Amino acid sequence: MDDRELLKTVMGIVGRDRCLDDCAIIPFGDKVMVATTDMLHATTDFVGGMSDWEIGWMSAAVSLSDIASMAAAPKYMLFAVGLDRWEQLAGVMQGASDCCRKYGAEIIGGDIDRHGELTIVSTGLGIVEKQYLVRRTGARPGDLVCVTGTCGQAQAFLDGYSQHKAALFTPQPRVSEGQILGKAGVTAMMDVSDGIALSLHDLLDANSCGFSIESAKVPLPAGIPDPQARELALFGGGDYELIFTCPEEIHPIAGVRYTVIGKAIPDRRVLIDGRPLKKRGYQHRWG
Amino acid sequence: MDDRELLKTVMGIVGRDRCLDDCAIIPFGDKVMVATTDMLHATTDFVGGMSDWEIGWMSAAVSLSDIASMAAAPKYMLFAVGLDRWEQLAGVMQGASDCCRKYGAEIIGGDIDRHGELTIVSTGLGIVEKQYLVRRTGARPGDLVCVTGTCGQAQAFLDGYSQHKAALFTPQPRVSEGQILGKAGVTAMMDVSDGIALSLHDLLDANSCGFSIESAKVPLPAGIPDPQARELALFGGGDYELIFTCPEEIHPIAGVRYTVIGKAIPDRRVLIDGRPLKKRGYQHRWG
Repeated sequence: MDDRELLKTVMGIVGRDRCLDDCAIIPFGDKVMVATTDMLHATTDFVGGMSDWEIGWMSAAVSLSDIASMAAAPKYMLFAVGLDRWEQLAGVMQGASDCCRKYGAEIIGGDIDRHGELTIVSTGLGIVEKQYLVRRTGARPGDLVCVTGTCGQAQAFLDGYSQHKAALFTPQPRVSEGQILGKAGVTAMMDVSDGIALSLHDLLDANSCGFSIESAKVPLPAGIPDPQARELALFGGGDYELIFTCPEEIHPIAGVRYTVIGKAIPDRRVLIDGRPLKKRGYQHRWG
Repeated sequence: MDDRELLKTVMGIVGRDRCLDDCAIIPFGDKVMVATTDMLHATTDFVGGMSDWEIGWMSAAVSLSDIASMAAAPKYMLFAVGLDRWEQLAGVMQGASDCCRKYGAEIIGGDIDRHGELTIVSTGLGIVEKQYLVRRTGARPGDLVCVTGTCGQAQAFLDGYSQHKAALFTPQPRVSEGQILGKAGVTAMMDVSDGIALSLHDLLDANSCGFSIESAKVPLPAGIPDPQARELALFGGGDYELIFTCPEEIHPIAGVRYTVIGKAIPDRRVLIDGRPLKKRGYQHRWG
């Protein structure tokens, strides 16, 4: 049992369409509101050495990244904070507040709870013009497959490459990039929080085409020997990059640093250098 | 240190006005969207003997009650579920889904996390016409102080009165009542989740008047000897009733079962039978 299998249980109850995107979609006059909620907690998500401020920052960034992946502008955030030590609250909320402010969102509410371990659920609301909304579905054969920035850095830090600490401790969600990409007309998008490989498989589930990427084109985290760097870039989790597809005609898109790593193909498979790319990456394991 | 003191820390970071109501308020065209988030978890909130379905129901009801207290109609819900045993997910989500459906809300998204104990954060969004929105602030001296239903039943069950099990296990948030009260023109409202006494003190903090109630008028949970029944009604937590103030002219309000228990007074105190009512009720305790 893994996260994606468990999600099927939820799909049976709330409907498959409600589980496909990084955010839910709400009609909002002539615009669209997107909504996302994310749970983080000490055991799984907050790495030793993180300050309360960094924990708060990360908790905001996770939801801001989901909003970015729909090409929406973050507007409102709520935080439910379960604490084992109340002394952490001020630092956590200051970090969350600073991250929200940097990316244009306002903290509008929350809940405080006493809990056995620090547990933070951030809920984010964003707004986007209907015609610029981007979902996971929408890719067409022939589209380019692209990724912003460099994946694998967060996992690289966990593997001992301390130069990549910032990627994990103070992640920068691709908020302005997401909106630029939406306006440019990209066809499908999601964030890469569980690695490029799993993200491509998620896009496969949502689309009626497949994806073929070239390993030589995937950007690699700096200062790491090659087989490991490539492994991290494809399968490492904890990054906040965007993966998207776009028609060749609109490439290059000005104002966003991204790399073309492959193409959408009619064949409903995920390939790397012509061979199947494993459905492997960061997932919670369930007994 | 208690919840309300800790809240002051948050007020310093996100602003006092953001922390006063049961829900945050978002402009939504010519209407208003309200948003609330609530964390519940096994150790504190889910009583032994509750089924997964009841746990899910309760998790939805908590946020639906906050929406009701703003006189809004629940529309959208998100659930972040942290599980120690994945087998619980289906039952929890079915209970949440059934509660949402009963009260007119749709589950639009969520998150699943592996966690040391079952932890559920429900986030609710509701809609209300601007002129019908009711906040905690707005009470005026001379207004009647009223409460729906009967408080103290949830705590009564915990104290061994098994006839009150339903109040705790399958709470019924006052969703239609809240909307009727808003349209009728009540002046201030909140839900009574931490007891009547604490709620009156919360209303005191939000308003420039005080409140004076009569113990003989407070509805008592059935089948409990008197001093204990009164204690439960005033100080017991875990109920989902609404407490509100309204001008005498609009009383009685048709379509809602409620009891007048007192009046708003110019003196900024909370009184019962002319004596100060203790600021006591359900609160988390912090070291």
